[in-house]
Amino acid sequence: MNLILLFEDDFKDGRQRVRLKGRRLRHVLEVHRAKAGDRLCAGLEGGPIGSGKVTHIDEEVLEMDIELGLKPPEPLPVTLVIALPRPKVLRRVLFSASAMGVKRIFLVNSYRVEKSFWQSPVLGGESIRKQLILGLEQARDTILPSVFLRNRFKPFVEDELPDLARETLQIVAHPTAPEQCPLSAGGPVTLAIGPEGGFIPYEIERLISIGFSAVNLGKRILPVETAVPFLISRLS
Amino acid sequence: MNLILLFEDDFKDGRQRVRLKGRRLRHVLEVHRAKAGDRLCAGLEGGPIGSGKVTHIDEEVLEMDIELGLKPPEPLPVTLVIALPRPKVLRRVLFSASAMGVKRIFLVNSYRVEKSFWQSPVLGGESIRKQLILGLEQARDTILPSVFLRNRFKPFVEDELPDLARETLQIVAHPTAPEQCPLSAGGPVTLAIGPEGGFIPYEIERLISIGFSAVNLGKRILPVETAVPFLISRLS
Repeated sequence: MNLILLFEDDFKDGRQRVRLKGRRLRHVLEVHRAKAGDRLCAGLEGGPIGSGKVTHIDEEVLEMDIELGLKPPEPLPVTLVIALPRPKVLRRVLFSASAMGVKRIFLVNSYRVEKSFWQSPVLGGESIRKQLILGLEQARDTILPSVFLRNRFKPFVEDELPDLARETLQIVAHPTAPEQCPLSAGGPVTLAIGPEGGFIPYEIERLISIGFSAVNLGKRILPVETAVPFLISRLS
Repeated sequence: MNLILLFEDDFKDGRQRVRLKGRRLRHVLEVHRAKAGDRLCAGLEGGPIGSGKVTHIDEEVLEMDIELGLKPPEPLPVTLVIALPRPKVLRRVLFSASAMGVKRIFLVNSYRVEKSFWQSPVLGGESIRKQLILGLEQARDTILPSVFLRNRFKPFVEDELPDLARETLQIVAHPTAPEQCPLSAGGPVTLAIGPEGGFIPYEIERLISIGFSAVNLGKRILPVETAVPFLISRLS
């Protein structure tokens, strides 16, 4: 936790002082091992970053005086469109995308997505939000990404994606594509990543028909959680 | 599992036929859902890749006739030097580095590495090997990376690292470094990545003194498991 993410209801009176319990208290006790007088990096969800000066800490509660005045880091101009991965991988992808500054993530269906993945509790709002918060705390950011679930591929790609991807570089990672992934897009990107086993040819065709370019990542087939930072790093 | 990794003792007689049980059988039954006559991608540990034709499969055993003749993908000319992360993260880093084609990984001590991490069962040879194999199976590679444990920072950096890193681009990722990570090294790289919280100034100084350049990854502090593919993608 490189930044303690604060929410409106953490504040006691006005914007000065917060009282924290639970996970954040435990982390500050056990990892930061902070004591009264220490300053910790903090930020307000959706707002500025700065610091909190510990005024009181014990096993029950952490109190800090908060001073916020700096902008959070710039969002990454990348929209992720990912075929819903299995729950364990999804958690990692959300955490890592949030840490990298992605602000818009579409989890979509695909022929090779197992139906049961759509029933996973990891897709619950609180579970998704938890991973996104962990990512922001890691990266010292305050702007929560938006995550959208789209459990029908065709209507999403035909009716919604063309507008979302307009005036962005549109890339779909596909192991058998002849073209290699370009280096540095220098602008906004819409990045589509298939499931284990990849998008099927029909799905790739649909994406190409609305303007996507299929690119490979070399001879290796990378796991989704590795492919996401690998591609974002090349394209941003 | 995009490739079934085979070992010498999987072969029944000579180099033609294998008999598999356990994890690989289960995966082929449950994920590939293969039946007699199907061809699956296979490769020999340390050797060529090709395919296996299923001659028999049931709940007990998978038998395949093997034909191997293709070279595995080129190794990535990157040596990773990573401050030992906590066990859960270590597993992911080993898997992901193996999938990306890294062939040499040094797990080193650093001031901010928790002592207990060195006692983790994840550091056992079989546990490390398992993650490396999963990475190769994912990426369709056959060459196992070598993993070295170095639980003393100073002797490693002074006595061993200079030779290892000779004639490579030497990069250490450091959030507060003024210089940004370069794009594309176009040659061999030695990449050092610190623990959560980063290398301490003394450690960075030691690395710089033997020829490393400290670079940042932008304003965000990425988790180790994200930083590894992010950096490798930029540098390779």
